Amino acid sequence: MRIAIVFGGSSFEHEISIVSAITLKNVFKKLTPLFIFVDAKRDFYLIEAQNMKSKFFSSKEYLKKSKKVTLEKGGFAVPSMLGAKKIDFDIALNLIHGRDGEDGKIAALFDFFGVKYIGPRIEASVLSYNKLYTKLLAEHLGVKTLPYITLKRGAERKVTIEYPLIIKPVRLGSSIGVSIVKSAKELDYALDVAFEFDDEVLIEPFIEGIKEYNLAGVYAKEWLLSLIEEPQKEEFLDFDKKYMDFSRDERVKEAAIDAALVEKIQESFKKIYDPLFKGAIIRCDFFVIDKSVYLNEINPIPGSMANYLFKDFEAVVESIATNLPKEREINISYLYINNIQKAKGKA
Amino acid sequence: MRIAIVFGGSSFEHEISIVSAITLKNVFKKLTPLFIFVDAKRDFYLIEAQNMKSKFFSSKEYLKKSKKVTLEKGGFAVPSMLGAKKIDFDIALNLIHGRDGEDGKIAALFDFFGVKYIGPRIEASVLSYNKLYTKLLAEHLGVKTLPYITLKRGAERKVTIEYPLIIKPVRLGSSIGVSIVKSAKELDYALDVAFEFDDEVLIEPFIEGIKEYNLAGVYAKEWLLSLIEEPQKEEFLDFDKKYMDFSRDERVKEAAIDAALVEKIQESFKKIYDPLFKGAIIRCDFFVIDKSVYLNEINPIPGSMANYLFKDFEAVVESIATNLPKEREINISYLYINNIQKAKGKA
Repeated sequence: MRIAIVFGGSSFEHEISIVSAITLKNVFKKLTPLFIFVDAKRDFYLIEAQNMKSKFFSSKEYLKKSKKVTLEKGGFAVPSMLGAKKIDFDIALNLIHGRDGEDGKIAALFDFFGVKYIGPRIEASVLSYNKLYTKLLAEHLGVKTLPYITLKRGAERKVTIEYPLIIKPVRLGSSIGVSIVKSAKELDYALDVAFEFDDEVLIEPFIEGIKEYNLAGVYAKEWLLSLIEEPQKEEFLDFDKKYMDFSRDERVKEAAIDAALVEKIQESFKKIYDPLFKGAIIRCDFFVIDKSVYLNEINPIPGSMANYLFKDFEAVVESIATNLPKEREINISYLYINNIQKAKGKA
Repeated sequence: MRIAIVFGGSSFEHEISIVSAITLKNVFKKLTPLFIFVDAKRDFYLIEAQNMKSKFFSSKEYLKKSKKVTLEKGGFAVPSMLGAKKIDFDIALNLIHGRDGEDGKIAALFDFFGVKYIGPRIEASVLSYNKLYTKLLAEHLGVKTLPYITLKRGAERKVTIEYPLIIKPVRLGSSIGVSIVKSAKELDYALDVAFEFDDEVLIEPFIEGIKEYNLAGVYAKEWLLSLIEEPQKEEFLDFDKKYMDFSRDERVKEAAIDAALVEKIQESFKKIYDPLFKGAIIRCDFFVIDKSVYLNEINPIPGSMANYLFKDFEAVVESIATNLPKEREINISYLYINNIQKAKGKA
């Protein structure tokens, strides 16, 4: 099976998507990936495997050395004087973190152009990219989340949650624009930072030393769930530290928790995943307070695809690749227009 | 201003999108539209104005007589031996009802390829296309909706709402697959019908003779709200009768309601619209029970763009065309990768 890893994008997480893609290159042993880079201008480039080094992108060497390709029905093609030449692959893997990849754009492009892909579909993207919508969804599905308020840019900065609290732009991942606020005097600055990145922010209580557990998985005829990790953390993982997620390729230690808690976490994961996230390999981050499980966030395109959480990541990829959600066939028969024509005596 | 009306799509509402487009052709007097047809296979065609007749599509004449065009950065182009020739227009109008148009695909395509357009953005599309998500959103925004339950295909058909009730596929518009169910013995058949169109259905009480009011509008530096119509209805508007919406171009009679109710309806509309639907001309359908306003549904691409509700529809189009939401600029500086390179001593 030939997988086209699509990475980059017009996103604050553009650079870590490059890191993720380089990591996956090393993770894949049986599968032979090819690499499609989406640059900051949203042009597509086919990148040779030997050029999959971060400097190749940061130095803009790709502009000179790589072929610009176009998105066409069924895939990508290399334009040439003799007509476009289709790039040969079986399935695309959406590895664009943040905007373009996680907001539904790539999903929509691939759906529209009939490209088979691993990744969240449009609805799944929108509901996980926006942390407020994730809350509304989780609540509807009976999965707890922390209490929260939202504030819009320009609105009165009235905060009804007790300090310390955590402020997040509603729509970003990877801790960008996130601050912990310990007292009212730090509030304005933290809000200003978050509003740099979005027009709406989410505010939740910040619970020092809260237990966090990560679980990744897919449903592909059967559940393929990863082990559960208790991520290492300092007081707060900022962007640089979180970078580690994107370059990880060594398997991690399983969290030391009892079977009952494992099951609760798995059940919460399944409620969130099925059926909305079918076709995607996602990682959910949970909090546990007094043995209750709370969804913290959904990563529909996790750093390095959370490969390090799975015993056999390539087997997971192969399994989902052959169990993708199918688009409903719509047969357009023009019966309706024909009937109108007939009624008008024009048919 | 030159407007490209994009219509058709791989949608159960493909045919009524054609009807909407033909209607708008007649509505536009000052603006000169051009027409881009998305056929059932999702190929794009440039349609000459004189060919904007329903039979031109149902007979598939467009395959022979119209030029196939491609979506490219900034717009559409006609391919030729001498290189693609850009089609000249200022702004696109997304007039694809149902799938492709209202589910976020066209929004994503236009966002990605940098095409300026009138229509719901990706998030707005997903939240209005899915009636369950519309409920969750409305509740969050403090706008009432009727009580409901949802059922998934294959799940136990346990209905806790009293008869009569109304069953709707979660994701379709234009009354497709919708049934009114008067007693338990009609339930299974109605659910089977709805599951023909979607994997999840929404069930609400059906309230005979409920008062319904429609309001359309946009925010473009200021609120441009239409008059409020009380739509004519028989017991229930099925697809054929609803067709009228798509071919309407005569202004309607204003509903005979008092100023207080007008204001309540307008306030509900504004809560829903701002900021999620910026860039779109939408119509919201409300119920009124005991002077309380309930959102029934959001039409982010209403039939014939609800032109018949506005005093000067073209002025509304011109106004929104010059007040579209702008994408946030993301400057990718490779600072992060450069820092890593430096730390490794490679820079």
